[in-house]
Amino acid sequence: MPGVPPTRFVYLGPESTFAEQALLTIPAAERGIRTPARSVPEALEAVRAGDADSALVPWENSIGGAVGVTLDELVDGDPLVITREVVIPVEFVLAARSTTALADVRSIAAHPQASTQCRGWLRAYAPDATVVDVLSNGAAAAGVAAGDFDAAICAPIAIQRFGLRRLADKIADHPDAATRFVLLSRPGTPPDPTGNDLTSLAVWISHDRVGALLAVLTELAVRGVNLTRIESRPTGERLGRYVFFLDCTGHVAEARVGEALQGLRRICAGVRFLGSYPRAGMPGAAPERPVPPPAGLSDPDYTDAAAWLGRLRRGELS
Amino acid sequence: MPGVPPTRFVYLGPESTFAEQALLTIPAAERGIRTPARSVPEALEAVRAGDADSALVPWENSIGGAVGVTLDELVDGDPLVITREVVIPVEFVLAARSTTALADVRSIAAHPQASTQCRGWLRAYAPDATVVDVLSNGAAAAGVAAGDFDAAICAPIAIQRFGLRRLADKIADHPDAATRFVLLSRPGTPPDPTGNDLTSLAVWISHDRVGALLAVLTELAVRGVNLTRIESRPTGERLGRYVFFLDCTGHVAEARVGEALQGLRRICAGVRFLGSYPRAGMPGAAPERPVPPPAGLSDPDYTDAAAWLGRLRRGELS
Amino acid sequence: MPGVPPTRFVYLGPESTFAEQALLTIPAAERGIRTPARSVPEALEAVRAGDADSALVPWENSIGGAVGVTLDELVDGDPLVITREVVIPVEFVLAARSTTALADVRSIAAHPQASTQCRGWLRAYAPDATVVDVLSNGAAAAGVAAGDFDAAICAPIAIQRFGLRRLADKIADHPDAATRFVLLSRPGTPPDPTGNDLTSLAVWISHDRVGALLAVLTELAVRGVNLTRIESRPTGERLGRYVFFLDCTGHVAEARVGEALQGLRRICAGVRFLGSYPRAGMPGAAPERPVPPPAGLSDPDYTDAAAWLGRLRRGELS
Amino acid sequence: MPGVPPTRFVYLGPESTFAEQALLTIPAAERGIRTPARSVPEALEAVRAGDADSALVPWENSIGGAVGVTLDELVDGDPLVITREVVIPVEFVLAARSTTALADVRSIAAHPQASTQCRGWLRAYAPDATVVDVLSNGAAAAGVAAGDFDAAICAPIAIQRFGLRRLADKIADHPDAATRFVLLSRPGTPPDPTGNDLTSLAVWISHDRVGALLAVLTELAVRGVNLTRIESRPTGERLGRYVFFLDCTGHVAEARVGEALQGLRRICAGVRFLGSYPRAGMPGAAPERPVPPPAGLSDPDYTDAAAWLGRLRRGELS
Repeated sequence: MPGVPPTRFVYLGPESTFAEQALLTIPAAERGIRTPARSVPEALEAVRAGDADSALVPWENSIGGAVGVTLDELVDGDPLVITREVVIPVEFVLAARSTTALADVRSIAAHPQASTQCRGWLRAYAPDATVVDVLSNGAAAAGVAAGDFDAAICAPIAIQRFGLRRLADKIADHPDAATRFVLLSRPGTPPDPTGNDLTSLAVWISHDRVGALLAVLTELAVRGVNLTRIESRPTGERLGRYVFFLDCTGHVAEARVGEALQGLRRICAGVRFLGSYPRAGMPGAAPERPVPPPAGLSDPDYTDAAAWLGRLRRGELS
Repeated sequence: MPGVPPTRFVYLGPESTFAEQALLTIPAAERGIRTPARSVPEALEAVRAGDADSALVPWENSIGGAVGVTLDELVDGDPLVITREVVIPVEFVLAARSTTALADVRSIAAHPQASTQCRGWLRAYAPDATVVDVLSNGAAAAGVAAGDFDAAICAPIAIQRFGLRRLADKIADHPDAATRFVLLSRPGTPPDPTGNDLTSLAVWISHDRVGALLAVLTELAVRGVNLTRIESRPTGERLGRYVFFLDCTGHVAEARVGEALQGLRRICAGVRFLGSYPRAGMPGAAPERPVPPPAGLSDPDYTDAAAWLGRLRRGELS
Repeated sequence: MPGVPPTRFVYLGPESTFAEQALLTIPAAERGIRTPARSVPEALEAVRAGDADSALVPWENSIGGAVGVTLDELVDGDPLVITREVVIPVEFVLAARSTTALADVRSIAAHPQASTQCRGWLRAYAPDATVVDVLSNGAAAAGVAAGDFDAAICAPIAIQRFGLRRLADKIADHPDAATRFVLLSRPGTPPDPTGNDLTSLAVWISHDRVGALLAVLTELAVRGVNLTRIESRPTGERLGRYVFFLDCTGHVAEARVGEALQGLRRICAGVRFLGSYPRAGMPGAAPERPVPPPAGLSDPDYTDAAAWLGRLRRGELS
Repeated sequence: MPGVPPTRFVYLGPESTFAEQALLTIPAAERGIRTPARSVPEALEAVRAGDADSALVPWENSIGGAVGVTLDELVDGDPLVITREVVIPVEFVLAARSTTALADVRSIAAHPQASTQCRGWLRAYAPDATVVDVLSNGAAAAGVAAGDFDAAICAPIAIQRFGLRRLADKIADHPDAATRFVLLSRPGTPPDPTGNDLTSLAVWISHDRVGALLAVLTELAVRGVNLTRIESRPTGERLGRYVFFLDCTGHVAEARVGEALQGLRRICAGVRFLGSYPRAGMPGAAPERPVPPPAGLSDPDYTDAAAWLGRLRRGELS
């Protein structure tokens, strides 16, 4: 496409971490400009300021849970929306400058969450090595390349990048561990519904209302909107005040999701729409079967009911 | 209005019963043509066939409950809608051809429901009189006028009509007993909302669905639509199959009622709309205070939420 | 059983109606003393006063609906409980003193509900006969036997009783029409659970509580207690005040029913227990399959949870 | 108490952090033995192994949210229960070895969460200083004492401990920021109810059940048990599998809480009881008013309903 400037992507750096690996699964990113950011706030700020088109940041991890900083950044400042999610397996490797026997590895650099996820393996295969906390998986690999540590727990992508040797593969204790990243952009028309979409929301409940969270879930359930995830984050004001992050099945363009959203808008102290986007499967895995809307809650059912109501209001019974 | 033919009303006869008395509270009926029908089916048939414009029939009684025949007739045949309700107190009188001491009254003609409602009075003041069952309050009065019985339990209207004497007044055991009548017409645009309206429905639930009635009530509750009455009637097929008659606060033209109706349309095996009409108070009594829609469920709240959803769908967040 | 006095049954008379026919399906009643009562209140009064052991009265009809007088009588006065239900098909016959051609039948005596249920048949086969309203099916047959009418719509039992001839069989429009009778006794230990029982209740909701009926249904639903029927009756005070009659699956001796009843006791303005008793099928028909308690709501599940709670309270976690 | 060994407390170290400060608010801990642990797992392991009697660890923070590691550690391994909560304000100070002008502070050591919470202050008052990430607030203070950095963001307790000078007070951006710590012990009889208690649970929902979370909240709501907090954590298996941590008002010894717990036990895939304990207010602040049980849900209401059910089951109606 001559004349079309390449899309500018920013991602949570440093280079050679799972975030970069995730970004590279997006064809447009492979062709586009990819810039690491030092932090999630910095990545989001780049998009908000127009210095980047999209930011890829971690959203949740099957071991560590929600990535609080991403959630927090999304509820403050100018709105951004998720246009895509990328799920990648968390496959840690143990890497060294040269082929070394495990018994000779004395120091292992690792991000604390990484060493936590490999705790079982470390206890079994490197019980005597000292684990040194570093600030990212990329930093661990860089430190090994620089000769600061004997080995690093890092992402496969760092092996080539730093010319390291793989001492051990898939050392994470949970073989199905995965991280969900989201691609955030400035607001625009959501991607088309695919029949297997998610809609993400941030919801502030009314604290003077008993059972407010139950009311929120009921608004969804009545419209057959399934909740796949709920996450609470403190609002920062004081203990006991939370904002809830909801991931629901369905797309804002669908009637039942639209009606549920309007219901939340009416009963909640606040709702921020965080995007409707195709649900991603684990790469290589069979995709999770889309949950069809329950009986009576498909778009045609909504269309039929709306037409019927129109007839009632015009007095056209038959 | 020269040239405009008078409105033709039919009502559950015979003459001189509470139904005629209720009809006369409607100004248009006072000016119009009023014809008694021998039965509720006959009254409704007259409207369906175009022989009358409206039918006034009993709907429920604070002592005897729902008037089954009216409910049953409304779910079969061409649709009719309630355009008005009339509530009148059930003030029974004891009437005779001439002034008579109660002690001399040997036989009292009464419709069985009337004598039931005056049971306490009869026991106290006419313990020795024989109560003779007749088919209507009007027939009781007519029988007394004809000399068949010593006295009749009847409606006040029958006193003048048959030139009887009032032996005792307000002899019903429950001083607040009342009957609700409804005025039924062929479908047309409902009367304008007044802010204090009722909407009546007949609902067939899905019998293969557990908790189907709970689901129906939830559809209403989520939209803040208050149920003032629920009545079940057999569908006639076999035991255990019912059609539910619901009276709800609000008007079909209101957003929350419209959304609730659509919800019922989608989850129920069938819904028949029976009209939206102003709520009537007991004549002379202070009207029941209209229940305002709960917070977040007024028409402006719906308008705001719909506009917000439109912006989400167009990607116009801010 | 020498020395044991026979059980004394009273039933809604007169003789030769469906109530007597229903009573005769109970073995103990066949052997016992059977006395017709002139009305439902009279029948119940006989039991309350100790003049009878049990009363069989109609409860609901698949065509006419609930039998209001029975419901009303049960919520006033000393408590009575249902110990048994009897369901019998409503099979109307047309009977005459001697074999007569239908074309020669000029007058047909019938209780109004009976003629309503045979309306289609009458229109097709006896369009020219005059239907005369009488006060019971038994009275219709008696009138024919006395020569007052050409024919009667009555119960099969009346044929033998009055020595009549059957002119036509099964003339009701709905072939599956049935009536449910209940056997009422003074309170005592309920019959043993059979695994397919019903529990009947009268419930007064709190009128100052929004969504009170929804709350009632939720108390049942949370414990997996299925509602098979709900009926509202006016309390008599004034319009808009109802008592609800509920039939639920399950037996008061079962844990989930017990917990649900306690829940109703706590949130309702009043609850009257009307008995737990085996569910009756239509005679000759395959019984309705008992609905097993939902997962987690059987008696063993309750026992397990109670034991677990006991351990928690004693600090015995493991 | 001669002969009674002092209670052994362990807390999340190092020394001189908010955890130690929180522990010192407990009188028994002031008198007892206090040992810092290097990590939450280490602290809990000490209690599980019997090397300590209780462990004080952070539970949630009004800025950073739930402390994932504490939650995760509680659902694996031998059960521990919360016997007390301690809430303390997060009042960060800026400390240096000697009194220094802010303009001369070049490097500031801080735990990343601490610097995040003081971001606004840093931008306003120390815009040119370099913030250096360290692993704890205590390490920051220790580093300053050792001369490695010009200043530290730390807890007030560290000032005395390391003989530092306070350059600035209450520098956190949110003046009401607070951290909730919990005191964990091996299972035993819960502390007595005080009328203002919390009960904490970990709940695994059934993933094959639609609306399972709604069902959980309904079990609580029906018994009037209020949810003050809900937190999800990944189970570690794979994305989309969560364990929910609930904090509810009330005490396991109360009837309504007991019934709700039993309900959860029956419908959930798993429930782990994490303790009932007095609700703590912010020190110095007016305590949050205890929420009394809703009408009909107090212990006497439960006792009354249970007695009533007993009478029903024995047939003792009146």
